[in-house]
Amino acid sequence: MSTPHVEHHHDNSHALGENATLREPISADGTPEIGKTYTVPARNGRAVRVKSGQTIRITNTHGTQVCDTWIFNADHLDEFLSFEHARASLDKVIPQAGDPLMTNHRRPIAELVTDTSPGVHDTLMAACDLYRYKNLGVAGYHDNCADNMRLALKAIGMRAREVPQPFNLWMNIPIKPDYSIEWLAPVSKAGDYVDIKALMDCVVVMSACPQDIIPINALNPLEVEFTVLA
Amino acid sequence: MSTPHVEHHHDNSHALGENATLREPISADGTPEIGKTYTVPARNGRAVRVKSGQTIRITNTHGTQVCDTWIFNADHLDEFLSFEHARASLDKVIPQAGDPLMTNHRRPIAELVTDTSPGVHDTLMAACDLYRYKNLGVAGYHDNCADNMRLALKAIGMRAREVPQPFNLWMNIPIKPDYSIEWLAPVSKAGDYVDIKALMDCVVVMSACPQDIIPINALNPLEVEFTVLA
Repeated sequence: MSTPHVEHHHDNSHALGENATLREPISADGTPEIGKTYTVPARNGRAVRVKSGQTIRITNTHGTQVCDTWIFNADHLDEFLSFEHARASLDKVIPQAGDPLMTNHRRPIAELVTDTSPGVHDTLMAACDLYRYKNLGVAGYHDNCADNMRLALKAIGMRAREVPQPFNLWMNIPIKPDYSIEWLAPVSKAGDYVDIKALMDCVVVMSACPQDIIPINALNPLEVEFTVLA
Repeated sequence: MSTPHVEHHHDNSHALGENATLREPISADGTPEIGKTYTVPARNGRAVRVKSGQTIRITNTHGTQVCDTWIFNADHLDEFLSFEHARASLDKVIPQAGDPLMTNHRRPIAELVTDTSPGVHDTLMAACDLYRYKNLGVAGYHDNCADNMRLALKAIGMRAREVPQPFNLWMNIPIKPDYSIEWLAPVSKAGDYVDIKALMDCVVVMSACPQDIIPINALNPLEVEFTVLA
């Protein structure tokens, strides 16, 4: 029943290991330089403050990379973009340009303003985590999006109690007519980006997904980039 | 941006109001009498302990009722059935008979053993909550599944930090080819049931969904029943 060799931490806010994400915040409290392009290095995460009215552009530099993305209310991290609530508001599985992104309190925290990609993203799959890699046969630590989220927040002095369902940008998880799903490589191209406009003061966390065992990142995890625009 | 007239509580473990659920636990600590059939009254919730190896049968008494269902690890409520993890394990949107139900720690907490209904359930939509009803135009308190979960746990002396995505039994949310969704009445019939076998010591929480504004309960919220079998 249990997964061998993995300690199960019963406070889900704690990372189960660490990587350079913890030591490389973009600034002490996550405040960005407006207009500066930052890199989320391959297999790592970053957290950035985006004030109400500002827009964050997230760019799929190489086109083949999934970016797990979370949006938290900067004042109360217990409120966050929640896809089980967002889907109910949109009557869609995947948001499209022009759609509001709703929190677990059913308020719009941001709007997906622009999407230059074909719009193939995922909202159904949890962030990869150490348990996932253990189940896939990995021995020892493997970078993972859940820990990257926790470490990116910790690097700017913040902590979230849970790891919400991420907005898995460019992740290609088709739902077939029998409601089975597949895990495929992205269909986006190099330089595709999304613009997300904050409607509250937010903390946006991104993880350049380190999944290298199944083909969602074309088996070659790479960096992505982001810029906060006034 | 904000929803008027609703206080936003920043500890998601607290109910935003209350109903009889708080005062009607099946027993002081949720331990059931084996083989006894209990009612979840219309618009209310109940929590029950199901030990590893026991099976809970949840019955759609009238056939038209959605039952929001949660399964928690009885020893650590921070571990629970999580559909964003379960979907990734099953490669399916909706579990079917024979499928394990995975936690946020990617362990099987239970198995969906039997399903006498056509298998139309939902795993995509958050429990209804007070914010939902306010957005739908309801003034004042409206019974809701999120509070029913919190109150049912409180009634047996327990508390969960968040309201996880429920297993929305018999809820009919078709996903169309363009990934839009609809909200329809159940296709189950009176007396349909699911048997769920616990693989850990669990607390199962059920809410007879009080949604009476959109047709997911055929606009007539009714009771459901459950029995714990040895």
